[in-house]
Amino acid sequence: MPAVGKVFLVGAGPGARDLITVRGARLLGEADVVLYDALVTPEMLELCAQAVLIPVGKRAGQRSAAQEHINAQLVDCARQYARVVRLKGGDPMLFGRADEELTALEAAGIDVEVVPGITTAVAAAAAARQPLTKRGVARSVAFFTSSTAPGEDDLAAIPSTDTLVQYMGGREAIATAQRLLAQGRRPETPVLVLENVSRPDERIARITLAQLALGLDTPHGPVLVMLGEAMAARAQQPT
Amino acid sequence: MPAVGKVFLVGAGPGARDLITVRGARLLGEADVVLYDALVTPEMLELCAQAVLIPVGKRAGQRSAAQEHINAQLVDCARQYARVVRLKGGDPMLFGRADEELTALEAAGIDVEVVPGITTAVAAAAAARQPLTKRGVARSVAFFTSSTAPGEDDLAAIPSTDTLVQYMGGREAIATAQRLLAQGRRPETPVLVLENVSRPDERIARITLAQLALGLDTPHGPVLVMLGEAMAARAQQPT
Repeated sequence: MPAVGKVFLVGAGPGARDLITVRGARLLGEADVVLYDALVTPEMLELCAQAVLIPVGKRAGQRSAAQEHINAQLVDCARQYARVVRLKGGDPMLFGRADEELTALEAAGIDVEVVPGITTAVAAAAAARQPLTKRGVARSVAFFTSSTAPGEDDLAAIPSTDTLVQYMGGREAIATAQRLLAQGRRPETPVLVLENVSRPDERIARITLAQLALGLDTPHGPVLVMLGEAMAARAQQPT
Repeated sequence: MPAVGKVFLVGAGPGARDLITVRGARLLGEADVVLYDALVTPEMLELCAQAVLIPVGKRAGQRSAAQEHINAQLVDCARQYARVVRLKGGDPMLFGRADEELTALEAAGIDVEVVPGITTAVAAAAAARQPLTKRGVARSVAFFTSSTAPGEDDLAAIPSTDTLVQYMGGREAIATAQRLLAQGRRPETPVLVLENVSRPDERIARITLAQLALGLDTPHGPVLVMLGEAMAARAQQPT
């Protein structure tokens, strides 16, 4: 056992066991210990052939002390095990608090490698067969989250791209829709709302911006909201 | 052999053979025919155990008739083979002309499934160990391309997100930098320029927005430019 192990920040992808990368799957099989998020599915953990499994899940709303605890756990694990995997839902570098974990590991002199994952937005686009960009219609897409409460006047926080993808976009997406309408976006702008992408309980709903502004009937599970003219259904597209 | 086969639009990821998804790798192994882009690497094609391999690469600048030819080839292949894979660099739903291929296949009554891939931006973030979002600094990121020539006055085309990622961003990124400076962005805004992400000849350069506006020393290969305050190097970050 080496004095200090190596840590791999690995993206698990959206949930389905076979939507992790080949490299990520190999690292899970070889890992001595895997620290995993609440968003990682049980079937994904079956790929960990020999690892000690440590849940470090946080759900939105818990205080940030939890992140400091995870940072400390990562450093501790790297001092005990040769191959440490930190498995994160989606991609580690998008909305994954990777900066804090990288900073803590680097300060402790621990070697880190990042393995990308399928971020929910592209998995959602695949599931809905709805490209995020479209020639002549959409050549830019933004991925964003909102920490503002509905009703707050924060128009500047909505990106100016052709396609908008709001992560963790339940109540927050309703506020976004209200602001976009106030900014003059077409009420008929097509919207896709996706839950539990790539999982057995996946749900995909097609609505309009005006409908989104009135509320969402999808309170459970991680919700992703995609909107813009590129979200229009094709003439012969299967639902 | 069925009357009509099924087509899988599969994301190859950034190039490294093990950065395709497990599902994508399995489909390549099972495919009867694989139509692949110019951006797909030879080592990726080694995963095609039995398939007829058809290059359908287009490079930027070729006329769009090439896309119509690819659409027709896909329909023809689905009438000849049971399992057809259309293998695209990165992710099929981001800057991949997927809308045109899906429309053509659906019009011909052919079943299509999309398998997401690692888009270059997240592979680049992983390679540089540089998260695209960062708590308190960047909660939005845009992926975009520019079809405008340098010097054109098209300020509206630059998204308003915290982090900007310009795909195919060689000369175009220089124009973007000039426009951002004109809009008042800090000249010291950190910029990462990445070439051939995940491949043996990968190159990563750290510059500033002011330096980018003066030009790029990276004329070859697909160039990705990432910029914004979240691109600042950490104190103990390895280069």
